[in-house]
Parts: sequence; structure tokens; C-alpha cells
Amino acid sequence: MQTLNVDLDNRSYSIHIGTGILSSVVELLEPLKLSKHLVVVTNDVVAPLYLEQVVNLLHNSTYDVDCVILPDGEQHKDDASLNSIFTHMLENNCDRSTTIVALGGGVIGDMAGFAAATYMRGIPFVQIPTTLLAQVDSSVGGKTAINHPLGKNMIGAFYQPRSVIIDVATLNTLDERHFRAGLAEVIKYGVIADAEFFSWLEQNVSRLLDKDPSALKYAIKTCCKIKAGIVAQDETEHSVRALLNFGHTFGHAIEQLCGYGTVLHGEAVAIGMAVASRMSAQKGLCSSADVARLDRILLQYGLDIHIPQGFTPTQFVTAMMRDKKVSSGVLRMVLAHGIGASAVHLLPDPMLDFTQLLADFSLGS
Amino acid sequence: MQTLNVDLDNRSYSIHIGTGILSSVVELLEPLKLSKHLVVVTNDVVAPLYLEQVVNLLHNSTYDVDCVILPDGEQHKDDASLNSIFTHMLENNCDRSTTIVALGGGVIGDMAGFAAATYMRGIPFVQIPTTLLAQVDSSVGGKTAINHPLGKNMIGAFYQPRSVIIDVATLNTLDERHFRAGLAEVIKYGVIADAEFFSWLEQNVSRLLDKDPSALKYAIKTCCKIKAGIVAQDETEHSVRALLNFGHTFGHAIEQLCGYGTVLHGEAVAIGMAVASRMSAQKGLCSSADVARLDRILLQYGLDIHIPQGFTPTQFVTAMMRDKKVSSGVLRMVLAHGIGASAVHLLPDPMLDFTQLLADFSLGS
Repeated sequence: MQTLNVDLDNRSYSIHIGTGILSSVVELLEPLKLSKHLVVVTNDVVAPLYLEQVVNLLHNSTYDVDCVILPDGEQHKDDASLNSIFTHMLENNCDRSTTIVALGGGVIGDMAGFAAATYMRGIPFVQIPTTLLAQVDSSVGGKTAINHPLGKNMIGAFYQPRSVIIDVATLNTLDERHFRAGLAEVIKYGVIADAEFFSWLEQNVSRLLDKDPSALKYAIKTCCKIKAGIVAQDETEHSVRALLNFGHTFGHAIEQLCGYGTVLHGEAVAIGMAVASRMSAQKGLCSSADVARLDRILLQYGLDIHIPQGFTPTQFVTAMMRDKKVSSGVLRMVLAHGIGASAVHLLPDPMLDFTQLLADFSLGS
Repeated sequence: MQTLNVDLDNRSYSIHIGTGILSSVVELLEPLKLSKHLVVVTNDVVAPLYLEQVVNLLHNSTYDVDCVILPDGEQHKDDASLNSIFTHMLENNCDRSTTIVALGGGVIGDMAGFAAATYMRGIPFVQIPTTLLAQVDSSVGGKTAINHPLGKNMIGAFYQPRSVIIDVATLNTLDERHFRAGLAEVIKYGVIADAEFFSWLEQNVSRLLDKDPSALKYAIKTCCKIKAGIVAQDETEHSVRALLNFGHTFGHAIEQLCGYGTVLHGEAVAIGMAVASRMSAQKGLCSSADVARLDRILLQYGLDIHIPQGFTPTQFVTAMMRDKKVSSGVLRMVLAHGIGASAVHLLPDPMLDFTQLLADFSLGS
């Protein structure tokens, strides 16, 4: 097992990464000195796989454990699911000392984290991510949220977990589609911050697609290390943290237009990265060879980079203008400066930028 | 005009108190360097009185102003109202730089503050409280929340405003019932922390009930000063801030059992203080003369101290056990140590404490 630290003063915490470490959950929670009442929040896909194991371990230790099982999917990352967590907790006399344990993917982690941020104005929570996307990205850094019909992750809080426990073995039960979607976020870290890691990803396609445990552990650790470093510098996204949104501005627009859950978050980010790299090339920030290299790795990892049909550039831009990265009508977009470096650019006239780009674009060709 | 400071590092802010200072709203906001998009959140009682004045002043300055007008009353401090704020803001392209201005009483301030805490993970907000209760208590200190059907203020966040603007003249349009309810919180400050202020309140009943501007200003400033001092010591209620909940544990139970909005918050706190003082006397922490003195001042200020009929002690205790002050089954209750001092006490068996107390109790007799 390896342990990384997210360095945030009195909100600092550990990320534990290992194979089979779910069985050590009691020992890993021990240093946190949590009170005995835990609420495990999970979904109906993860529950049959891991809930009994986790609850039994906790229960056989000193904990009282309640469970909330939500329906699976991004379309349920909403106000109704959030309220069902609150109602369950109030009915079961959860108080300010109760800890929420998020057991699942990014949707569960974001929603359970936001419940923890706002239940009685804030209670402790722990992340046990079981999807690749959650393990490399959403479980680390304290971004919590639910979706609003008019925009993704619009309602939320910055609220750090007390610990993140990443059991790489849980990826063995993750379906191919979700696994590949998670790889989009893995590739993102290479593009924005680490050219060497990007090359390693190019050289280890089959090991990762075969879920080789040591390759997975290396990739996850590298992503978490990059993210922990960025979050420690800029917890609430006033500067460098925005780079983590590479591919996300267009990606969120896809998710919202297609309907939450239709295109997976990672799938949308893959397309968003292909779009962002083309805009980067158009502005002379990266070469067409870099664009081709990013396209190629996305395709090698089984990610589609075609823009969903049936939407006009105006619809995409309108959706993007509701993004959290918009300020006073100016869209901020992360662009690639070659492979391994990136920066936030201001687009004062995004309609102009995107209309031409999307018209010219025959992605994946 | 007088200005107090709430000292919270990079979250510090000013409380401005004066008569007629609503007309200086533009000048008072100026030092905050807000971006130009403001959303004023108010209700259908306050809107006809002050909204046009405030919007015109802001609009004639450099601001773009949107308005959200919610239905009045504690029964609307809920998820549905909160979501209507979010929907309005998304439809009007509010971004992370938009500022929410809460114009109204405690319900508006708590709800608009919670919207600010969670819209896009946090945007600036300003409090312009127009009720006595909001001016002396809820607008200061950063407690924001909505109610859940199973408990008051159960969902919320600690989130500080950027400024509080208290125009004492707005109390001239406040109805008698709400004005008296606010006086319950004023009296609370005397009981928990300031014997001299309590005596002043005993000596100035008619001036305050007549809304004498200088008496009102003195009372509001004293309350805000006490609260600012406590909040600066303990922003997130791990210690001394809990004293501000004197009368609130039983008070919240009354509000929840009677149905939000039936008994006003301040009215419920008045009854809760009468109950808490009796428990204090029962435990030898204050004298029966102190209990009588508190009863007398509450009655002089027109506050009823009868416990609402039709509920059993078990119902009250069950409601209190859902309070945020419960931890691991132990109820924490603020008790008076005479007039002008108070402390948090643990009640490991609240059913025992309350059953006898409520049975013996013929309040107001």
C-alpha cells in the first residue's frame, strides 16, 4: 500500500492506494478517531459487490453502520437523491459526529460529499472510490456537488474528505465502458502537467486495458500525486486548479445537452479534450502533431472522439456559457501548450471561436 | 452610523448600523469591490416596501440587478424555495462573480446565504436585514440553512457574508408580532452574557416598544457586538458559540411540532428560555428570583411563555433529540448561571429531565 498526503493545513488528509485494501478499512479509519456512527452511501450497482464486506468489517469492529443505497447513474445526481440521504440520516438520528462513507464512483462521492458538507452545516466524510474515474480524480480534492437541470455540478461546496481509500482491486468488477471513461481523466493529467506520464501511457496501453495491477497502481498514484499537488496550491480554484478542467468545459456541455447519464463524464471529457486540443492548435499553442498524438491515445484506449450529432454550435456555446468557468460573460478555457503543459485562456467571443472550430471539425478522421 | 467588525481573518467583515442608511447602500457596498451583477433575494412582504428603492439605487449606480421574490414565512424556508433561487440565477446567467443580496428577515437571510454558499460552490453575499430578529441575530455570524420536514435548520453551511447593512428605520414597517419576536433574541443576549444590558432592557421597555430610534440603535449595536465577539472566538460552534442557542433547543422543538411558521422563531425562543431558566433553577444554577425576572421581562415585552398545548413530553424530547446539539445521544443544553452568564450542560437522560419539568410547569402563572 502507498500513502499520499493532501496538504491543506487543518484539512489535510491521506490517500491510501493498494490492491485488496478494502479488507483493511477498519485499520485505515482508526487514526481518524471517528465517532461510532457511520452512514455508508452507495448505489445499487456497487452495493451487491462490496457493501456487505464493508459493513461487516465495520460492524464487527466498534461501529454502528447505517446504509443508504441510491439508484446508479449521473441522472440521479440530483436534489431528490440528496434529500433522500438527508431524510434517512434524520430518521436514523445521525448527528454532527456521524461520519458519511462514500462507497462508489464519482456520482456517489460528489453527492455523499455534498451531503456531508451541508448536513447540520458539516460532518466528517470518507471516500472509498470504486471506479477509475473516482480513484484518479473526483474522490480527491474536496469538490462536491449535485447537478441542476440547467447545468452540471452547479450546486455544491468545497469540502475535503477526512481520508481517501483506493482499492485498485475494485476495478476488476468495473465494466469496460466505465473503465475506459476513467482512462480519459488519466490521459488528461498527462496532457496538462506531465509529458513523461503521457509517454508512459502511450507505451502501456495493453497493460492498462488488461487491468494489470501494478500498471494500474502506478497510473492511479501518478494522477493522485498530480492532483494533490495542484489542490494543495489552490484549494478553491482561483488559479492553477482550473487546469484540471481541461476538456471539461465542452465535456459538460455534451453531458448536459445529451441528458445526464447518456454520455458518461469521462467519455464527454475525451471529446472535450479533442475539441480543446484543436482550439489550442488553432491558436498556435500546440502543433497539429500534438493534436494527432492526443487523438491517437484516446482512440487506443477505446474512447470515441466524435462530437454528438444533432446540436448546433449555438447550443454548445449556450450550454458552455452557463459553466462555472464563465465570469462576466467571458469563457475561460484550458488549452494545451503542447503535451505536458497547459494554461487558462480567456475567450471573450466564444461563439466566434467555436462556430468555425466545430464547422471545420471532422473529429476522429 | 456605527460600524462594528467581525474579526475572522480573510473572512472578516463590517456590520453597519444606522437610521436611514438604506439610501447609502451603494456607498456601503463600494469598498467590497463586487462585480456588477447582483441578485437581490427578498420576499413578498418586504418587496413592496423596500425593493424598488434598493434596486433603483443599485441600478442607477454601476450594477446590473436581478430580483428573486419568494413567498414570506418560515414554512417556505425549504428546498423548493432554495431551488427557485438557483433556477432563477442559472436562467439569468449568474456566474461565480455574481453577488447575492439578502433583503429581508431571518428566513430570507438564512436561505439566500445558503444559496450563496452552494451556488457554483460559493459566491459572495451581503445581508440587509429588515426585521429585528435578523438585525440582532441571524444576519451576523454566517449560519445559513434551510429547514427539513424532520428538523429546523438541518441543511446548511457556515458561510460568512461580505457585509451586513442594518437600517434601523426598516423596523418602522415591521408588524408588532414580528417586532416582539425579535425582542426575545435581544433579551437572550442579556441573559447569556451581559447583566448590565439585561438591566438596561428592564429599564427601557417603553422606549423599545415605542421603537425609539436611539434606544433601538443601542440595543441592536449591543447585541451585534456580543455576537461578533462570540463568533470571532468560535466561528463553527465547537465551544462558546453554542451559548447563543439559549432557549433554542426547546424553541426549535416547538417550531417543528407546531409546524414551521405557526409559532414565530422568536416566540418559540421566548418559551424555550422560560423552560431553560426553570431547568437551570432545578439544577441549582440560578435562583427562582432569576427565573421570575426573566419571566417578567418576557411578559413586559409582550412575549407569551406558555408551552403550546397538545404535545406530550415525549414528543418534545423526540424533537429535541434531532437537534444539531445532540451528539451520540447526549443532549447539550445551554443553562443560565444567574442573569448575564451561561454554560452548556450535558443531559445524558433528557427524557428524565424534561418529563418532570414539563409536568410541574405552569408557565406564565
